[in-house]
Parts: sequence; structure tokens; C-alpha cells
Amino acid sequence: MIYFDNAATSLYKPAHVKRAVMDAMEKYTANPGRSGHIKSMEVAEKIYDTREAVKEFFNGSNHEVIFTKNCTEALNLAILGLLKSGDHVIASCYEHNSVLRVLEHLKSIGVEVSIISSDLYEFADNLEREIKENTKMVICTMVSNVTGEYSNSEKIGEICKLYKLIYLADGAQASGHMLVDLKKSNIDMFAFAGHKGLLSITGVGGLMVKNGIELNPLMFGGTGTDSENLIQPKAIPEGYESGTIPSIPIISLGAGIEYINKNFLKIIEKEEDLSKYLYYSLKKLNFLTIYSKCDTKNVVSFNMKNIDSSYLADVLNEKYSICVRAGLHCAPLIHKKLKTTKTGAVRVSIDFNNEYLEIDKLVLALKTIYSSLT
Amino acid sequence: MIYFDNAATSLYKPAHVKRAVMDAMEKYTANPGRSGHIKSMEVAEKIYDTREAVKEFFNGSNHEVIFTKNCTEALNLAILGLLKSGDHVIASCYEHNSVLRVLEHLKSIGVEVSIISSDLYEFADNLEREIKENTKMVICTMVSNVTGEYSNSEKIGEICKLYKLIYLADGAQASGHMLVDLKKSNIDMFAFAGHKGLLSITGVGGLMVKNGIELNPLMFGGTGTDSENLIQPKAIPEGYESGTIPSIPIISLGAGIEYINKNFLKIIEKEEDLSKYLYYSLKKLNFLTIYSKCDTKNVVSFNMKNIDSSYLADVLNEKYSICVRAGLHCAPLIHKKLKTTKTGAVRVSIDFNNEYLEIDKLVLALKTIYSSLT
Repeated sequence: MIYFDNAATSLYKPAHVKRAVMDAMEKYTANPGRSGHIKSMEVAEKIYDTREAVKEFFNGSNHEVIFTKNCTEALNLAILGLLKSGDHVIASCYEHNSVLRVLEHLKSIGVEVSIISSDLYEFADNLEREIKENTKMVICTMVSNVTGEYSNSEKIGEICKLYKLIYLADGAQASGHMLVDLKKSNIDMFAFAGHKGLLSITGVGGLMVKNGIELNPLMFGGTGTDSENLIQPKAIPEGYESGTIPSIPIISLGAGIEYINKNFLKIIEKEEDLSKYLYYSLKKLNFLTIYSKCDTKNVVSFNMKNIDSSYLADVLNEKYSICVRAGLHCAPLIHKKLKTTKTGAVRVSIDFNNEYLEIDKLVLALKTIYSSLT
Repeated sequence: MIYFDNAATSLYKPAHVKRAVMDAMEKYTANPGRSGHIKSMEVAEKIYDTREAVKEFFNGSNHEVIFTKNCTEALNLAILGLLKSGDHVIASCYEHNSVLRVLEHLKSIGVEVSIISSDLYEFADNLEREIKENTKMVICTMVSNVTGEYSNSEKIGEICKLYKLIYLADGAQASGHMLVDLKKSNIDMFAFAGHKGLLSITGVGGLMVKNGIELNPLMFGGTGTDSENLIQPKAIPEGYESGTIPSIPIISLGAGIEYINKNFLKIIEKEEDLSKYLYYSLKKLNFLTIYSKCDTKNVVSFNMKNIDSSYLADVLNEKYSICVRAGLHCAPLIHKKLKTTKTGAVRVSIDFNNEYLEIDKLVLALKTIYSSLT
């Protein structure tokens, strides 16, 4: 089996992460932040350590970390928590439905939405002309989950700073795969998933919120603080983490970040090399239409002539045990731009666990499939 | 160390659950419901099996299961998803802040809220007189997290059926500790936590929704279905599980339910015996005020004379390594009824892993503390 669906989730969790989970199931099963006893405090300390590790990893010392169940919840919290009727928001056409469907909902309550249809890196160059008096927020993914293109986050951050706009970056595909520096890029809010590049188990994501930003909560409930008060407290993170937090997934995230910190340069170097090799290997096949660029971050999407992407993905799975993802990848507007709404595209997404030989096998499979069809 | 904080979370996870998590970290790390390849389908099958196991466990064959991150998200989804300005809702004073703070928020947008202050079992007897023309929903916890009292769910269900009201039951404390039968009790929506009586790791809860009930989603995003459409689909569960679901916590929940199914009678019998033993052992201590009743479900709360509950819990933790929870337990209105808002109460919550000897040790510790204070 060859796994090329790392943009959906990383398949191989480091032994360090697995050990942390096994350890946590023995020692850290109590409820942090609810009681004052030793078992609760031990877990609370692990959660605190992970919050600090997240801040350091993304260079967000002026940010707080709100843990969520996934990146989608983090994006919903950032967008629904900030925007009100009459506000204007600018987003790229590369955004995922976890942004686009939220914006579509907000349109119905009077939020104005502008979508910039340029290539992702040029989003920054087209941003200024879209800014209006009521613009409050700019949303741009750091890396496209469809093409592997990346945004010019430093320039976006500069413009947002100049115009006093809140810059929300979707880090789902960037986290763990490239250097993300919230301070340098002036990112106000940053959403991440644990189970992709950060190598945690599923069940955790997070939103990093710069100090001073006020959000409305997505949900209400017990915070372990100020329990007498029926009004949801607005302290970050407590007021935004109602109910029992996913402590064991969070502990696994801490271990994932520890692993990455120790191996970051090696991971990035290998992923860059594999990305280039993948891109050029597929680019050589003249029966493919490639939607990615040569400096892609871990993702190459393509179609084979007029073949439906789902059919091709099924053949790769069933005949060659190669796992890729077909369809629209929950990002419909970029497919509209690529004119692939009907066919979708086949997405190959690697991580540092992949090997050159696996890419060679993919190329061979595609050649064989193509020749059997013609 | 003696652990008496099972109402917050169960400390000891069965070997069967731990093995399932370890197994899942090897085999089931792909993203279910996102791609069509073998690794994704294998996880999807495990998730499907767990949904079916949940339905069967709670006898909810007419319900669908929406997996959430915890019970709080499930309650928020049920309440915020259903109620609109102008609706009336009736709840018990035993509800947790995961209900009360949601209702407090809804008051500000024009939802009418009635709270019934009777004892929990008598909620049913007092319900009918509170029903108005615009009453839409009745919310009642099955077991109080403060006193261990239980509700008369069959009678509540009958009344709700008669008046065509939606009956939402909070099963956080009931699940895994007593027989819950959605059909028999005519429960329309049922919220549960995985990590308490159902013995899963943290990171998963769920809302069971009777077929035909329509809800607005709490958040928007990728559902792996109908990706071209910017409008959030309303299919249950997909439309309410945006983003990557907590697949590994869900798999652990499946294993927890398997374990309980095999041992349910033994678990319930032991917990009933321990509950009685705990109640009568503490009742004998005339320097305690007990807030629970003799047929309590796993919880006894009390105070010692005029001593602040947090102080007493700290002494139990530090000097006797006994873990209990003090304060208001995120349920302020029942503390108001008990007149314990200022002091809080000490809560002892057992599960089937506790032993009689541990209760004896608690009694001894309380006697020693009391005599040292007088």
C-alpha cells in the first residue's frame, strides 16, 4: 500500500506520539481544569505544556491557544466569533469549505464577502484594492489543499497591519510542513489541525488568537471558572473551551510537536525534495494536466485527459494499492478557477514518510492505466 | 491514591479500550469519509460500527448519532440548533452550565426560559403546569452531577409526546451507569459524553437525534459530500460533523461500549452497592450535611459544618491522597436550591473500579479531619 493522502491526515504517527498516548491512557485520564486534586493537576500541567509548545512552535508569544476538535471548529470560531452584520471580509478563492460555507452563512445575516480569484501567492498583491471602509477581516490559507500553492503571508500581514484588519490564516496544510511565524507574518488568528502535519491523533485542532482580540463563543458551558455566573466568561482560552477538553489528543499533539522540533529541518528538506520529484515526474507525463506549480508544498493535483478523477483514484486504489484523493477536496472555488468542477482532480499529497520509489510506482501505474485506455 | 472524581471523568480505562486505541494508531489513522481508498474506508467502517453500537446501546433505532467533541457540544447543538426567538423552553434547576449558559444566551435573543425548582424526580410532576402555547422543548438531565438524583424520564417522555414537545435528555452522568432506553422514555434528543461512564478516551461525545427533527448546525465546513455546494448540507450526521471527526476517540468509544455490554449487569450491581455503602457511611457522620438521597446514582455530595468545600477537598487530596471535587460543579442553580452557593459542596463520585475499603478510608479521613478541627 502506498499512501498519498497526507493532506487529509498523516497516516504514520511517530513512535513518540504513540508512546505519549499509551502513557496518557495510564496516567493522564483525569479531567484537567475541573478539580484541584493531584490527578487533575497532573493532566492540567501536560495541557499547559502543550499550549506553550504550540505558541513557541508558531512563534506566537503574543497569542493564546484555544484548543478545538479540529481545524474547522477553529476557523468557525474565528469567523463567526468576529464578524457582525455590516462587516466586510476578503478571502481567497483557495479557501476550504470550512471558510467558504461559514461566509455563505454570514452573507445571509448581512456580512459582505469579497473573493479574490488570483493565484494564491498574488492574493497579497490584489488585496489592497478590495479593502473598503467596513472591511474587518482578511482570510487566506497558507497552503492550498488542492494545488499546494502557498500565500505571501508576510505581505498580507503588512497590509492588514497598515489598514488595521484582522488577518486569519488557515494553517491546516502548512503546519508542520513549513516554517510558520505568526509574529513575522503579523498573523492575528491562526487555525491549525493536529492530525495532519503535526502528527497527533485525530480529535484536536486549535485557534491561536492575538492578545486583545475579542470573540463571541461558538458554544456555551462549563469552564471550571466562575461557575456561579450564567453568562459565559470571555477569558481566553477558558471561555472558548467549554466542556471537557480533548486532553489525550492534546497530549498527543504535544508529542507530535516535540518530534517535529527534533526533526524539522530533515522533514522539510525531505518534503521539499519529494514535492519537486513528484511534480517533475508527473509533469513529464504528457497525458496529464497538472494543476500545481513546481515549488508546490507536498501536493500535486492532476487529471488524465477526460477521465473522471474518482474513476482514476478508484483504479489506483483497487489495482495498484495507491491511496490518493479525487473530487473537489472541499474547496469548490479553486476548482471553478481550474475549470475542474465537473471532473474534480486527482490529488497526490506526500509527507516525509513517503519515498521516491513510491512516486516511481505511481508514474508507472499512471502510464499503464493510460495505455490500457488508449 | 483513591479516585472519587468519576463524574468528571472515569480514570481507569479498560485494557480493551487501550488496546483499541493502540490498534487504531497503527491501522486506523486515515481520514474516514473523505477519500475512497482502502485506508479511508477501513476507518469509515469502524466509525459506522460505533454509530450502530451507540444506537443499540441506548435503544435508539429511530435516532441518528452525531459525534461531537464532548457532551457540551452535543447539548449546544441540540439547544441552539432547535430554538428560535419566540420559543419557550422548560428546564430543571439541576442542569449543568452546558445547558444553563446556552439558555441564558438564548434569553438575550428572545427565547423564553422556565426553570422548575422541584427535586429532580418530581420535575415530571411539575412539568405540565409550565407548558405554554409556545413551548417547544423540555430539557432535563437524567442524573444530577451534584446530588446523584435521577429524573423520571418515562413520565417526562409521555408528557412531551402528548404535547408534541421535543424532549432533550442530558445523559452525561447516566450513560454507562444505568439502563437508558430512548424508545421507552420517548427521548427525542440525547446527549452523552464518551470519557465518563462509557470509558472512552477524551475527545468524543455525541448527540442522538430522532429521525425527522431538523436542526441548524453549530458550525459549517467540509462534509465530504456535495462539496460544490456552498450551503451547508442538512443531512444527519454529515451536515453536523464538519471537518475531520475525532476518529480515534470514536473508536475508543466503540471499545468502551463493547466492554460495558459484556459487563453491564456486574457494573450496575457494583455501582449500586457502592453508592448505597457510600451514602450510608457518610450519613452516619453527624458532622456532615448530605445533599444526596439514599438511592443516589454514584454521587454523594456533602459539607462538613462551616468548612469551605475547596479547603476540605484540598486536605483530602494533600493529606490523604483522596481525589474529590469541590465547588459548584458547573451547576449553579441546584447549589442555589441547596443553599450552598457560597461554600460549594464536596462531591464524591464512584464507579465500578472503586472498592468498599476506599470508602472506609474516606470516612476515617473525614473523622480525623473533623476531630482535628474541633
